[in-house]
Amino acid sequence: MPIKDVLKFLEKDQEQAIKRLKRFLTIPSVSTDPAYAFEINQAAQWVGQSLTDIGLKTQVHETEGHPVVLAKSYGKTPPKGVPHVLFYGHYDVQPPDPLELWVTPPFEPTVRDGAIHARGASDDKGQVCCFLEALRAWKQAHGDLPLAVTVLIEGEEECGSVHLPPFLEAHRDDLQADVAIVSDTTMWDAKTVAITYGLRGLLYFDVQLHNPDRDLHSGMYGGTLANPANTLTAVLGKLFDDKHRVTIPGFYDDVLDLTEDEHERWTELNFNEGKFFEQVGVERPFGEASYTTLERKWARPSCDINGLYGGYGGAGAKTIIPSFAGAKVSFRLAPNQDPGKIADSFTQWLESQDTHGSRWRITSFGQAYPVVVDSESPYMTAAAKAIERSSGRAPVLVREGATIPVVADFKRLLGIDTLLIGFGLNDDCIHSPNEKFNLDNFTLGCRTHAVVLAELAKVK
Amino acid sequence: MPIKDVLKFLEKDQEQAIKRLKRFLTIPSVSTDPAYAFEINQAAQWVGQSLTDIGLKTQVHETEGHPVVLAKSYGKTPPKGVPHVLFYGHYDVQPPDPLELWVTPPFEPTVRDGAIHARGASDDKGQVCCFLEALRAWKQAHGDLPLAVTVLIEGEEECGSVHLPPFLEAHRDDLQADVAIVSDTTMWDAKTVAITYGLRGLLYFDVQLHNPDRDLHSGMYGGTLANPANTLTAVLGKLFDDKHRVTIPGFYDDVLDLTEDEHERWTELNFNEGKFFEQVGVERPFGEASYTTLERKWARPSCDINGLYGGYGGAGAKTIIPSFAGAKVSFRLAPNQDPGKIADSFTQWLESQDTHGSRWRITSFGQAYPVVVDSESPYMTAAAKAIERSSGRAPVLVREGATIPVVADFKRLLGIDTLLIGFGLNDDCIHSPNEKFNLDNFTLGCRTHAVVLAELAKVK
Repeated sequence: MPIKDVLKFLEKDQEQAIKRLKRFLTIPSVSTDPAYAFEINQAAQWVGQSLTDIGLKTQVHETEGHPVVLAKSYGKTPPKGVPHVLFYGHYDVQPPDPLELWVTPPFEPTVRDGAIHARGASDDKGQVCCFLEALRAWKQAHGDLPLAVTVLIEGEEECGSVHLPPFLEAHRDDLQADVAIVSDTTMWDAKTVAITYGLRGLLYFDVQLHNPDRDLHSGMYGGTLANPANTLTAVLGKLFDDKHRVTIPGFYDDVLDLTEDEHERWTELNFNEGKFFEQVGVERPFGEASYTTLERKWARPSCDINGLYGGYGGAGAKTIIPSFAGAKVSFRLAPNQDPGKIADSFTQWLESQDTHGSRWRITSFGQAYPVVVDSESPYMTAAAKAIERSSGRAPVLVREGATIPVVADFKRLLGIDTLLIGFGLNDDCIHSPNEKFNLDNFTLGCRTHAVVLAELAKVK
Repeated sequence: MPIKDVLKFLEKDQEQAIKRLKRFLTIPSVSTDPAYAFEINQAAQWVGQSLTDIGLKTQVHETEGHPVVLAKSYGKTPPKGVPHVLFYGHYDVQPPDPLELWVTPPFEPTVRDGAIHARGASDDKGQVCCFLEALRAWKQAHGDLPLAVTVLIEGEEECGSVHLPPFLEAHRDDLQADVAIVSDTTMWDAKTVAITYGLRGLLYFDVQLHNPDRDLHSGMYGGTLANPANTLTAVLGKLFDDKHRVTIPGFYDDVLDLTEDEHERWTELNFNEGKFFEQVGVERPFGEASYTTLERKWARPSCDINGLYGGYGGAGAKTIIPSFAGAKVSFRLAPNQDPGKIADSFTQWLESQDTHGSRWRITSFGQAYPVVVDSESPYMTAAAKAIERSSGRAPVLVREGATIPVVADFKRLLGIDTLLIGFGLNDDCIHSPNEKFNLDNFTLGCRTHAVVLAELAKVK
């Protein structure tokens, strides 16, 4: 089954493929906010129907959270003598706010400057579509795929994938495969594809301090009682020491050090730090002392306040002592840190602070393990060869600071490694207003997945 | 002109008076938010019409901010041989949010449990109406007032009274009087009226830290740059030392110490600290070391974060580094502190902090001077006598932690002292959801103002 015909089909069908992606992007499948429950279901159904249309046996599974779409290229048993690939993606997206900063509305996908602009364009609907189009092209060109494929598309990646691990455990038999492919990362630069072999984990908390049972007049009460906003800033202000290291006891105990080899390879990457910060309007790097920006991003844990709220935040002045104040606080965990252990340490640390009578309400939003995968497996070699063929350049081996919880779960629950091959760019504004996905990257993604399937088929 | 007839009219007309107050309370005259500009004007017009109906020569003056209503009981020159009283109140109110906590809507005044519930019921529309009803009763009972009266009702008290001082200066001749009356404070307890002789001043800031030019993905950037929310909490966390004293250099330099006499009188007041905190669901006092709660509230400066905002504050999780984070920060100033000096110190203190590349945007929302007035003037004595007569109890002399900017302005610009006689209660929830004004207090307020006018008429 020659790859040539597959690539020819992709070229011919490009306009239709973009139309399909646009349709997918019109669905506001925001997973973290219960207000979008209908749209989440709509997105799951859209993915299910697409896989059925391509010719896979597809089922949309209800879970205790959002649906999981599961599809197979075969009937009862997988074909023998060829590898079995498990593809993972997610149909949910980040909230689009602040809405007023979007040039065109987040769920009205618009092509301009060679890119399709919409929430989810790059993270992850565009990348999911790359794989779907590769499958479609194989089916259209040859009536079949060169190897066994299982496709798993979930809807909770942007809110912690809480219900995915139990789903993986319950469907362990259905999910047996030799290797996983995840397409939810970025390229090294506009021309060089990256294979990502390490990811940070994630912990996310909503942390509130409560004191008076209502907002109080700051003149009548100011200075006489613990203001929760004052105390919250005082406590969160102690999260870092003067080397910008997290002060939670034991926080760095289990962090994996870089190997000599990694250190050397990362230096050779010639990471363009100036451009990295310039692209987002930041004047200078800042972080844990004694590490480079690339190390801070890929190999060191971090702690960010993702939002502050409570009391008056509107126009002008309102002279109150707020009844409560809150913060969203998250951690990116470096490989070998244990999310459960860090979660306990953080909670204990908060509860050990003197809040002068104010009371904590702490909510946890899921945990994701960090991961490092084998960068020398035959699948990795095959993927690298395919990428060189489709893009004209050898890929680079990188880690990523972001989190894809399923990669650690695949290792832990199914015992398989993952090939992280993504087609986003750093300036895609994922999680930000004006998210986009370049049409060139979309085309490259479709082609590359088609060739990767061909090359993986030759392994064993 | 016997007071008996005036009090009889008040009693007979009570139901109509409540109806008028209710009408006033339906107008959402929120001064701090430009969205309410129409309603602010409506409230000014309502006050103007009421004063005209009562029989005063009234004018609604446009200013660069919200209108000021000015009314006089006489034509060209005030009557000779009687004192001249200047009454001050405000028709604007605090924002009503959080709306969901109101039992009945903030601008649909509702009587329950013997109190009228609405935003502004106690602060200050209800108290303004007490004075207007006293004027009306005098006019209805005797066709005239026992002394000269000027009424000044402004619309910016809740947002710093920025345009009032220039108005006072421009209308200095029109505002000549012997003494001012302000009715915007609370009673000592449900039965004892207080005369307030000291007030704290106010400074209010909106303080923002900006860094990346958009919200960033916390996985891709976390740990590599200064997160404005992290830095803002770190900076604001340094506002207090471990004695809960404000750390801004020179902050306490000019604070007036309590006199021996005041110290003694305040102890004799037997302030019920337990009830003060219990009423608002607070477990324990907290504030500047070495001071009592009453001293912290009345005589010591305070600093409160009135609100926090920036980044994601919605349901669930959003993994971003916010482009900016902000806080509303205000100071209550103790007598003799200079607002301009403290404002400069605070701004310099913020700008001296290392923000690791993040940039400040600081906005100031007006300043109000603290004040202490002469507590032994003949007007004070006359007012005390009137209060004893109308309420059956001698009043107590107190200070207040809140701010009424005009009192210091009257002293500074017109050279007159103010009688602060208020009828609110501490549990009126002013600036909070479910603000109320007891009907008993409304009645007492109307009666007391009527008698105060009679007693002040005898001075000189």
